[in-house]
Amino acid sequence: MSEPLVLTLSCADRPGITARVTSFLFERGGNILEAQQFNDRTSDAFFMRVEFDPANVGRAAIREGFASIATEYAMDWKLSLRDRPRRVLLMVSKFDHCLADLLYRWRIGELPMDPVAIVSNHPREAIEHTHLGEIPFHHLPVTRETKQEQEAQVRKIAEDTGAELVVLARYMQILSDEQAAHFSGRCINIHHSFLPGFKGAKPYHQAHERGVKMIGATAHYVTSDLDEGPIIHQAAEPISHADTPEELVRKGREIENRVLAEAVRLHLEERVLLNGKRTVVFRG
Amino acid sequence: MSEPLVLTLSCADRPGITARVTSFLFERGGNILEAQQFNDRTSDAFFMRVEFDPANVGRAAIREGFASIATEYAMDWKLSLRDRPRRVLLMVSKFDHCLADLLYRWRIGELPMDPVAIVSNHPREAIEHTHLGEIPFHHLPVTRETKQEQEAQVRKIAEDTGAELVVLARYMQILSDEQAAHFSGRCINIHHSFLPGFKGAKPYHQAHERGVKMIGATAHYVTSDLDEGPIIHQAAEPISHADTPEELVRKGREIENRVLAEAVRLHLEERVLLNGKRTVVFRG
Amino acid sequence: MSEPLVLTLSCADRPGITARVTSFLFERGGNILEAQQFNDRTSDAFFMRVEFDPANVGRAAIREGFASIATEYAMDWKLSLRDRPRRVLLMVSKFDHCLADLLYRWRIGELPMDPVAIVSNHPREAIEHTHLGEIPFHHLPVTRETKQEQEAQVRKIAEDTGAELVVLARYMQILSDEQAAHFSGRCINIHHSFLPGFKGAKPYHQAHERGVKMIGATAHYVTSDLDEGPIIHQAAEPISHADTPEELVRKGREIENRVLAEAVRLHLEERVLLNGKRTVVFRG
Amino acid sequence: MSEPLVLTLSCADRPGITARVTSFLFERGGNILEAQQFNDRTSDAFFMRVEFDPANVGRAAIREGFASIATEYAMDWKLSLRDRPRRVLLMVSKFDHCLADLLYRWRIGELPMDPVAIVSNHPREAIEHTHLGEIPFHHLPVTRETKQEQEAQVRKIAEDTGAELVVLARYMQILSDEQAAHFSGRCINIHHSFLPGFKGAKPYHQAHERGVKMIGATAHYVTSDLDEGPIIHQAAEPISHADTPEELVRKGREIENRVLAEAVRLHLEERVLLNGKRTVVFRG
Repeated sequence: MSEPLVLTLSCADRPGITARVTSFLFERGGNILEAQQFNDRTSDAFFMRVEFDPANVGRAAIREGFASIATEYAMDWKLSLRDRPRRVLLMVSKFDHCLADLLYRWRIGELPMDPVAIVSNHPREAIEHTHLGEIPFHHLPVTRETKQEQEAQVRKIAEDTGAELVVLARYMQILSDEQAAHFSGRCINIHHSFLPGFKGAKPYHQAHERGVKMIGATAHYVTSDLDEGPIIHQAAEPISHADTPEELVRKGREIENRVLAEAVRLHLEERVLLNGKRTVVFRG
Repeated sequence: MSEPLVLTLSCADRPGITARVTSFLFERGGNILEAQQFNDRTSDAFFMRVEFDPANVGRAAIREGFASIATEYAMDWKLSLRDRPRRVLLMVSKFDHCLADLLYRWRIGELPMDPVAIVSNHPREAIEHTHLGEIPFHHLPVTRETKQEQEAQVRKIAEDTGAELVVLARYMQILSDEQAAHFSGRCINIHHSFLPGFKGAKPYHQAHERGVKMIGATAHYVTSDLDEGPIIHQAAEPISHADTPEELVRKGREIENRVLAEAVRLHLEERVLLNGKRTVVFRG
Repeated sequence: MSEPLVLTLSCADRPGITARVTSFLFERGGNILEAQQFNDRTSDAFFMRVEFDPANVGRAAIREGFASIATEYAMDWKLSLRDRPRRVLLMVSKFDHCLADLLYRWRIGELPMDPVAIVSNHPREAIEHTHLGEIPFHHLPVTRETKQEQEAQVRKIAEDTGAELVVLARYMQILSDEQAAHFSGRCINIHHSFLPGFKGAKPYHQAHERGVKMIGATAHYVTSDLDEGPIIHQAAEPISHADTPEELVRKGREIENRVLAEAVRLHLEERVLLNGKRTVVFRG
Repeated sequence: MSEPLVLTLSCADRPGITARVTSFLFERGGNILEAQQFNDRTSDAFFMRVEFDPANVGRAAIREGFASIATEYAMDWKLSLRDRPRRVLLMVSKFDHCLADLLYRWRIGELPMDPVAIVSNHPREAIEHTHLGEIPFHHLPVTRETKQEQEAQVRKIAEDTGAELVVLARYMQILSDEQAAHFSGRCINIHHSFLPGFKGAKPYHQAHERGVKMIGATAHYVTSDLDEGPIIHQAAEPISHADTPEELVRKGREIENRVLAEAVRLHLEERVLLNGKRTVVFRG
C-alpha cells in the first residue's frame, strides 16, 4: 500500500458528483478505504471526504487529474497525505489542563500532530504542571497597548513554523478581528460552556447563578464574532444544586479536555468541513 | 406502618437544625425512611426533606408540635402525606406527546398524580393520539383579546378542582405576569431547548441554524420572566450535521418527554425546593 | 420527484464498487439523496446504503439493470421504496410500555410502519393502558405443551398479513430455535439489560444485587442463541445505591422504550445491515 | 473554623440514629457542613456521612465521646480530618494514561492525595509519557515464580509509607487472594469494560467481536473474586460499527481515566461505604 491520501471537497449539489469522484479514483487504480458524503438539502450543498490508497499513481498526478473535475463542479477541495502529522501551534494562558491533555495524547500517538510551538501570555514557569519537553515556548505577554504587536508576533511564529492549525487551549485572550480573519478556518477555541448559553467570561459562575442542571463545553472555529464561530463538537454533563462554582470548574475541566481533543483530532484528520456558519463532521 | 409523611423545610442555616428536626421526630416515635439536607454556603440557607413513618402519632399532633420549631427557625415548611396523589391540571396545545407520556406513566402507577382536568386552547378532537379517558377536558381558546378572561377560567378550574400543580405539557402559550404570579412555584413548563440557549420560539430551528452539536430540553417553574424560571431538570443529546430541523423536532420529543416527566415526578414527591431563582432537588 | 428508492447491499470488498454503483444510478438519471458506505477491514466486507430519486426510470428497470452488477460482485442486496410503510407484527406480554410507545410514534407519523397485527400471550383486556385501535389483536396463550402450535399460529399470522418485521416488545417468551430461524434477520427483541451483562430473567434484580452503577437496554435481532443475536442499538443511564429494584424497573422502562423505538426505526428505514454476528448501522 | 472532620458510619438500621449522631455533634458545638444518610431497606442497614466543623472541641474528645454511641449501635465507623491528603500507593504497568491523569489532577490540587510511591512491573523508563517527579518509583517485576515475593514487597512498601489506599491504575496483574484480602476495602482497580460484561483479558477486543454499541469502564474494590469486587463508579459511551478494536482502546482510555479518577476522589473524600458486595456512594 502506498501512503494513503485524503480528499475533501464541497460544492453546489448536482447529480453524479459521487460517481464522478469515485470513478476518477477507480480509473487511476485508487482503492477507497473510507468515504462519506452529505447532501445538505437546506443549502443544496454537497460535501465529501474520501480516504484512499493511491496505489501506483503519484499524488501529483492525482492532484492534476482531479483539478479539472474540481473546476467543472466549482469545488472547494483539498488533497493531502492522510498520515502526515499536521503542524500545530498551541496557545495557552495559565490554566494548562487542555494543553497537558493534548500533549499527552500526542506523545502516546493518539493525535497525529506535530506541535511546532507553544505561545503563552504567561512565562514558561507558569505552566508548571505540564511537561513541555523540547517544544519551542514563546512568552508573549499582551496588554491593550501591545496587542497589535503581539498578534503580529504570533502570526510570524505561525508562518515561520508552517503551522497549519492554531489551538487556543484555554488561551483566555480575545483575538482581534484581524487575527481571527487571518487564521480563519484553522484556529480552534474551547469555550467552557454549552454555547450559545453563557457566552463571555466566567461561564461556570454564570451557570451556577442561573441554576442550570447541566454544564458543557464547546469547541469551535474562531471568527471575529466572539463565541459565534462554527461549532465542531460539544458535550455536557449533569450537575446538581450541591455543586459550587469551584466544583463546576473542576467538572468542567474534564469536559473541556475531551471536547477540545476530539475537535482537534477531527480537524487533524480532515474530518471537519465548513458549511457557512456551521460544520459538517465526518466521523469514521 | 402508618401512612408515611414527608416534611420539607428551608431556613437560614445555623448549627443544630438537623439535630432539632430529627430529635423531634424520634421523640414522637417517628421512624425516618429517607432524609436529605443541603447547606447552601453561597446563600447560607438550609434545606431539608424527610420521609418518615409517624407510627402512632397523628399528623395533626406532629404538625402542631413542629410549628413551634418552624417558628423558632423561621422556616418555610410543608408536611404532607407522602403517598397521596397530588391533584394536577394539565395544559396542552396541539402537540400532545408530553401529555400522552404523562398520562401513560400515571396509568401504570409511575406518577403519583390525580389528573383533575386537561385544558387546551384546541378542541378535544385535536388531541387525537392520546387516550384522555374520563379526565374532564376544557377547550379554552385564547386570543390576545380573550387572554385575560381565558386565564381567569383556568384559575377557576384550578380552584374548583383543588389543583396543586399545573403542568404546561407543550402548552405553547405565554402566561401573563398575573397568571405566572398566581401559580408561582406550582406551575411547571417544558421548554424545548437547553436553556439559557435558544429562548423563545422555534428553538429547534434556531439550533439547526446555529449548527450546535447537541440539543436539549428544560423543565422549569413558570415565572413572569419568560424562560427564566427556576430550572428543575435538563437533559441533552448529541445531534449531527445531517439532522434536519424536522429530525431535531423528532429527537427532541423524546428528550422533552423524559425531562418533563422527571420534573413532574420530583415535584409530586416533594423533592424540589425553591432556592431563590434556583432549585434544590433531593433525589432518592 | 418520483418516489425515492433505497438500495442496500453488502459483498466482499474490492476496488471500484462505489464507483460502479453510483455511476449506474447516475447513468439512469438517478439523483442520490443520501449515501453511506463502510469497508470492514476486519472481515474485508463492503456495505452500502443509497437513497435516491429514480427520476423517470421505473423501479423494475433499475432492479433489472442492477441485478447484473449484483451478480458480478456477488452482492446481498435489496431495492425498495423508501417511503412505503413496512408491515409490522407486534408481540407483547403484559408489560405494554414498549407497545404503547411504538404505537404512539406510529400514530404521529414518526415510525414508518403499518402495524398489521398484535399478538399476545395475554388477553386483550390485559393490555389496559394502551390504545390498540383497529389493529387486529390475537390472543395466543402459550404453554410448554402448546408452544409448537402457538408458534405455527404466529407464523401463519405473519404470512397472512405479509409482515416484514416482527417486534418483540417485551414479549417475555423465548422463541424456539425453529421460530428464531424462521424470522432470522426480521425479528427484533428488546432485552432489558446492557448485554452481554445480565442475560436471562430479571436483569434489573440481577443489576441491583450486583451493585452496578448504570443500567441499560439492548435491541437485537433474535437468533436461536438467546440474548446473543446481532445488536442494533444500546443505551445506558446512571443509577445510585438508593435505587431499589422497583426503581430500576421504572428507570429501565424509559431506556427500553427509546432503544427499541430507535432500533425499529433504523430497521424500517433499511439502515441496519447484518455483518455476521454484528450489525452495520447507517445513521442519517 | 477549625479543621473540618468527616465522620462515616454504618450499622443495622433502627429509629433515632440520625437524631443521636447530629445531637451529639450539636451538643459539642460542632457545625454540620454536609450530611447524607441512607437506609437500605433490602438489608435493613443504615449508612451516614457527616462533614462538620468541630469548633473548639478537639478531635480526641469527639472520638472518645462518639465511641460510646458507636458501641451502643454496633457501628462500623471512622472519624478523620477532612482535608488531610490520604497517602496513596499507585501501581501501573506499561499503559500509563490513568497514572498520568491521576498525577495531573493531584498536581493542580484536584485530588486530595499524597502519592507516597509508584510500583510497576516495568522499569521506570517504560513510563515515558508521564512526569513522575520526586515520587519514589519501585520496579518490581513479577513472574509466576516470584509473585509471592513481589507481593510481599508491595505490602512492605505500603506499610513503610503508611499507604491508606492502593490504586491499580491499569496494573494488568492479577493480585493473589492473599494480597486482595490484605488490601481489602482499600485497593481500587479500573477494569476496562462495563462489568459484568467482558470480564477478563482484552475486553475491547471482546466488545468489538460481540458487536456492542457502547463501551464502558468500571472502578471497583479489589477482592479475591476477580472482576467481582464492589463497584464504585461506571461510565459508558456509544460506539459504532466503524470503530476498530484500536479505536475502542483509544476511546476507552478517556472513559477509564475519568471513571478511575472519580472513584479515587470519592474514596479519598470518604464518600464510599461498603454495603456487602455493593457500595453506598455519597456524592456532595
